[in-house]
Amino acid sequence: MNGAESLVRTLLASGIDTCFANPGTSEMHFVAALDRVPGMRCVLGLAEGVVTGAADGYARMAGKPAATLLHCGPGLANGLANLHNARRAAVPIVNLVGDQATHHRPLDALLTADTEGWARGVSAWTRTASHAYAVGADAAAAVAAARSAPGNVATLILPSDVCWNQGGVVARPLPATPPQAVDEAVIEAIARVLRLGEPALLLLAGPALYEGAIADAHRIAAATGARLMAPTFVTRLERGQGRHDLAKLPYPVEAAVAALAGIRHLILVGASEPVAFFAYPGKPGLLYPPGAQVHVLARPDEDGAGALAALAAGFKVRAIEAVAGRRPEPARGPITAAATAQTLAALLPENAVVVDEGLTFGASFYEAMTDAAPHDWLQLTGGAIGDGLPLSTGAAIGAPGRRVVTLQADGSALYTVQALWTQARERLDVTTIVFSNRKYAILIGELDNVGAKVGKTALDLFDLTDPALDWCALARGFGVEAAQVQSQESLADLLRHTNSRRGPFLIELVIP
Amino acid sequence: MNGAESLVRTLLASGIDTCFANPGTSEMHFVAALDRVPGMRCVLGLAEGVVTGAADGYARMAGKPAATLLHCGPGLANGLANLHNARRAAVPIVNLVGDQATHHRPLDALLTADTEGWARGVSAWTRTASHAYAVGADAAAAVAAARSAPGNVATLILPSDVCWNQGGVVARPLPATPPQAVDEAVIEAIARVLRLGEPALLLLAGPALYEGAIADAHRIAAATGARLMAPTFVTRLERGQGRHDLAKLPYPVEAAVAALAGIRHLILVGASEPVAFFAYPGKPGLLYPPGAQVHVLARPDEDGAGALAALAAGFKVRAIEAVAGRRPEPARGPITAAATAQTLAALLPENAVVVDEGLTFGASFYEAMTDAAPHDWLQLTGGAIGDGLPLSTGAAIGAPGRRVVTLQADGSALYTVQALWTQARERLDVTTIVFSNRKYAILIGELDNVGAKVGKTALDLFDLTDPALDWCALARGFGVEAAQVQSQESLADLLRHTNSRRGPFLIELVIP
Repeated sequence: MNGAESLVRTLLASGIDTCFANPGTSEMHFVAALDRVPGMRCVLGLAEGVVTGAADGYARMAGKPAATLLHCGPGLANGLANLHNARRAAVPIVNLVGDQATHHRPLDALLTADTEGWARGVSAWTRTASHAYAVGADAAAAVAAARSAPGNVATLILPSDVCWNQGGVVARPLPATPPQAVDEAVIEAIARVLRLGEPALLLLAGPALYEGAIADAHRIAAATGARLMAPTFVTRLERGQGRHDLAKLPYPVEAAVAALAGIRHLILVGASEPVAFFAYPGKPGLLYPPGAQVHVLARPDEDGAGALAALAAGFKVRAIEAVAGRRPEPARGPITAAATAQTLAALLPENAVVVDEGLTFGASFYEAMTDAAPHDWLQLTGGAIGDGLPLSTGAAIGAPGRRVVTLQADGSALYTVQALWTQARERLDVTTIVFSNRKYAILIGELDNVGAKVGKTALDLFDLTDPALDWCALARGFGVEAAQVQSQESLADLLRHTNSRRGPFLIELVIP
Repeated sequence: MNGAESLVRTLLASGIDTCFANPGTSEMHFVAALDRVPGMRCVLGLAEGVVTGAADGYARMAGKPAATLLHCGPGLANGLANLHNARRAAVPIVNLVGDQATHHRPLDALLTADTEGWARGVSAWTRTASHAYAVGADAAAAVAAARSAPGNVATLILPSDVCWNQGGVVARPLPATPPQAVDEAVIEAIARVLRLGEPALLLLAGPALYEGAIADAHRIAAATGARLMAPTFVTRLERGQGRHDLAKLPYPVEAAVAALAGIRHLILVGASEPVAFFAYPGKPGLLYPPGAQVHVLARPDEDGAGALAALAAGFKVRAIEAVAGRRPEPARGPITAAATAQTLAALLPENAVVVDEGLTFGASFYEAMTDAAPHDWLQLTGGAIGDGLPLSTGAAIGAPGRRVVTLQADGSALYTVQALWTQARERLDVTTIVFSNRKYAILIGELDNVGAKVGKTALDLFDLTDPALDWCALARGFGVEAAQVQSQESLADLLRHTNSRRGPFLIELVIP
């Protein structure tokens, strides 16, 4: 057995059965091994940003990592932005990167690059395999590293000779480090803080945003008066009718500061301290009041959901009924953010997965879609735009049978628009709604935020009308059906149409 | 004056007047400064690979660097692959990367990444600016580093507060290190080697591939019987009717070994030792005979063209007339590589710039187009595919008035297809010919090369027919006119059409 085959067999033995790939020459033996070893679903991306973003979306929904397959340093580089997003979301990915043969690397052939150096910035675990007999063990270690709490990018670099040499050994799965239980003393200390009756806020992230944990947090809130909130950008949040609502921290600095004003105790449950996304002249970096005390109920690698359950139990409050909101009717008339969110809330299918890279136009959608049918909310988590279409692609594969609805800003969509082809090829149930405002609207706001004056050169740089992008032509070019809508009525018609069929569809929402 | 304005004024004073940009929030003050300071042409790319590849193409034709403008670590990461290609081509680029404010970086906001770490792998010079009063001097140093021989990627990272703070000082241009003259003793030593009369080959690269240097090399060949060759991938080679022909080293290992068989003396003129692009089981890494002696006439940072002139002068051979080949007639009939190259050779406009990322289908085009009208030949130089469309975009801006003809493999084109939009926006004279074979043909060959068996999973991974990409729809989606051709006659018609008008056009060449 060669190294490549031992690698594929080890991945399968460790529960990794999906591989998002954009292979090249150095990965040929891995590809050949896939033909000999059944069981690995291989999904092709036309660009590496699609591959890594899809691996992220898959893991968020499947609850386990996929593998990637990338080609040498530059192929990894093309995928780094979405690996950065995955790192910030604490999403597990087994990131495989083929590379020059060990004996060929010293010759510095043209494609040779600092693959390991580039990997480190996104990886909690990085290793370059060195022998065929050990690559199975390397793969098992990579899977364990990826699956260890809170979820990590683990990069295994595969020199081609390590894959083609004989002597491969299939390795048994290694145990991953699960989320650690929070110490009882910590839970008691937080309970004492909450009993003070001073203004307190629990900031929840990670698995503390799943339905049961949010319900427990609401019990704590009912008992103590503490407020609850999710960060601005969430990995995966379960919500919708019949579930407890949870506000998110607003993105603009002023709004975030206002939302946290008066807080005396900020209690982190798997979340980081809330800081401004960017610095702005004269604005604060920390978003909570200077006098507030920050407490940690659970670190990201600890069991935040378990800690919430224990804390709630201590307050002896029963389960609280979620407030039953009324599902809205589809809106009528022109395309506005409020009307579009209403139409979407009305027509979102049961158990949908919403991928939100809506940015400027989409800023209000989260709140406005609270009363939609039960759904998961997934977001761009690291600020590296161009995550939405790949994330949706992977989410659809990780959650078969559920429709994915992508709220997608147009400028951001263009970084990884190639993902549409994978959606067509894999016949994925994804409805992409492109918010076509034909500009980098967020940057026009940001120019103002940093106190700079908007002039002609700047406006030209943020303008996408010359030429205007034809989203329906782009989608069809990649094999995805598409249509343009300019009213709520036609948006509703198309949503009903896409909900009733299989496969991908793109709706270009023309924002007037 | 704030730091950003001092930066823009310093760049202009140092001769940098073109900036390829994909800015974000941290670059807003730079963008605002462009409105206050006239003279900088700003070219927007929809993705960072377009930006960095265009900066490469621009510098190859303009003979001086452009600036880039990228957004934080992930924006840089998206541009690394084409910076890697530029590094391998020794092309100067002033690579500007906006980043988190110095005081904001410790807060580890979501978009924060190891920008400097990622930059180092492609940059000969990397610096993070730290004060507004010094950023002008930083910019002058970056330009000098980029322009120093042989041409470098110089990365200057710009924390946003360094740009927005007052106290900017415009810096005077710093001297770049020009190519050093080759020592006379070295030239004499090489002359002695050549006088031995043993089989010798001069391998030319860099500026030794411009018309005059190639002519000098031919004088040396005439005097000594030495053979001449260019590397497989060239940065910019001047050729066509009335110029001296120069063979390129073939890409396949066996063909390259055969081409160099029997050589006793391998003389490098700005070139690296020829090594296999990838390692293959049982095949050699070094392509020249084990017994050959390797001599260096000029290192990449030395004046190879000057050394060739001095060497030629020593042999007292007059200028040799270039062999006048006959320009072919356009071919007729079906789409084959030979016929297509013939049609292109017949109809290539005078002084065109050919950008060659033709890969499998395009492998024979260089040789077949020898007798076309005078033209420059530019190639993907670092093996990170997805360079062709961006390179063409930048080349058209760096060489106004000359038509750029892009020979483009379809699989590679998809990595940076967004470049078409910039071509439309800037109304660039680029004719893109997509070799639409709807597969990763090169990988099917490579699977065989590495001795792996081709099975169904592998073939599926290399197949682009499900769904087939509609190149005309993609081009129109990005605002570029396009048409499909299935015969030499319609290819010829379209080439005549595009040659007679301004602006970009895409031809989908359907390979049967």
